Order: sequence, then C-alpha cells, then structure tokens
Amino acid sequence: MKYVDSRTGIEVLTREECLELLADDVIGRLAILVGGAPTILPVNYVLDGSTVVFRTDPGAKLSSGPRGPACFEIDDFDRASHVGWSVVVAGMLEEVTPYASATYGRLHELPITPWAGGDKDHWMRLVPTLITGRRISEPVVQ
Amino acid sequence: MKYVDSRTGIEVLTREECLELLADDVIGRLAILVGGAPTILPVNYVLDGSTVVFRTDPGAKLSSGPRGPACFEIDDFDRASHVGWSVVVAGMLEEVTPYASATYGRLHELPITPWAGGDKDHWMRLVPTLITGRRISEPVVQ
Repeated sequence: MKYVDSRTGIEVLTREECLELLADDVIGRLAILVGGAPTILPVNYVLDGSTVVFRTDPGAKLSSGPRGPACFEIDDFDRASHVGWSVVVAGMLEEVTPYASATYGRLHELPITPWAGGDKDHWMRLVPTLITGRRISEPVVQ
Repeated sequence: MKYVDSRTGIEVLTREECLELLADDVIGRLAILVGGAPTILPVNYVLDGSTVVFRTDPGAKLSSGPRGPACFEIDDFDRASHVGWSVVVAGMLEEVTPYASATYGRLHELPITPWAGGDKDHWMRLVPTLITGRRISEPVVQ
C-alpha cells in the first residue's frame, strides 16, 4: 500500500524499497560536519546489509569518525517531467579497522573500487539510525 | 589551464565553471543541521547571481535560517564509465522576506516552481562563502 502525502503529493517509500534502491546504485552524497558546518562529498559505495560502505584516504571523512553523525543520499530525477525519488540514510560514521576482524574481512571482499585515485585504504561505513525515501510520481498541477 | 591533482586524478573546476554548471541545472541537494546532525534534502532551485534560491514550506529548511550554515551540491556521474563532476556551494542559509524588498521582488520573478506540492511561499537562499567543483574525466587505472 502506498502512502502519499496529500498536501505535497510525495509518496513515502518503505524501508525495503529504500534498501533496494540503495543496493542498485553505486554513487551518492555523504554529508558530514566540518568545523561545525554541514559539508557534502560525493562517494562511490556499496551496500552491506543496511550499512553504506566506502573507501577513503585520510581527510575530512576519516576525521569525522569514529561515531560522527552523517547523512547519505541517493536520488534520480527527471528534469523534464519533474518526477523522481530520493533515499536518505541518517546515522553514525565509523572506520572499520582490522580490530573489527569479521566485519573488516567481509568489507574487504566487497566490490568497491574508488572512482578517484589515491590509496583509499581506509574502509568506512555509515551505520543507519534512520532510512527514509520519497518519490514524486506525478508532476504537481500548479 | 586545468588543475589536476596528480594523486587522485581529480580536476579542480574554476569558480566560473562551477557557476555555469549551477546555472544549467535545476535540482540539487541541500545539507543543513537538524538537531546537530547533517541532513540532506533534495531541492529544486534557480541560481540568482551566485546565490542558490529555492522555495519552501515551514519545516527543517526554514527553521535552520536565518544565517544557518548549509551546503548545496549538484553533480552528474556516468555510472558505467566512472566519470563525472560535482559542484559544492558552502555558505549561510537565509530567508528572503518582504523587508529585503529589492531582493524579495527580484526573487519572486525567478522561474522557480516547486516540484512537490504545498504552498512553499517562503523564499530562501544560500549565500555562498565558498564554491568548489571537481571533475573525474578519465577512469583511474587500478
């Protein structure tokens, strides 16, 4: 059953729909805090269960862990017809180190080749506290 | 002249290139602080000079102004070839009210029809402190 907000016309996606969309995509946007201000960084990722996994070099993303609040978003919009969807994962960012040995081993098996260069030999993941998604299926009549 | 980071292969875009890309697109992602955590919300927008203008209803975006730190991002990625670009605008979010009469009048003339429903009769803008852009033009050989 679909839930559609009657005021905005926006359909609310289920958690299962959100996870399917997350599993099907490979690049999204991570928002972290840098100096107290939100900052958006594109990252290519894979989904591991319900966590968003990516590789990075030392820098802002790595510094914001462990247990830094973060948000991740994917979307797809049709600019001509004004329809589309977005999925947002809110949670805590953490680096997965060899000390978390089972997880570390599993993540290293994931097919995640960084698009940009650099060693990117730090594996990080966003552990979700909330996964939400929205879809605009039909253009709003104005 | 292009500036390409030799370690990552990422080309750094000029401010002028970033503004051209921002002028050509119509939807992006806004990151704001909600309860101290970064949160990403898609918004359709227009560029007014170098400010990012959008309309909203009362809610998280409106509450984070006036003068809340925010970040806005647009991008375009080719998932098959692993190339693409992103532009990030960092700055302060503010509501443009009738008291700022010249700006208010100009913004109300902009072609910005919200994709989602709702009155969305609050005009907000992100006033940039920093506009940056990056492009991956060629896949990294791993």
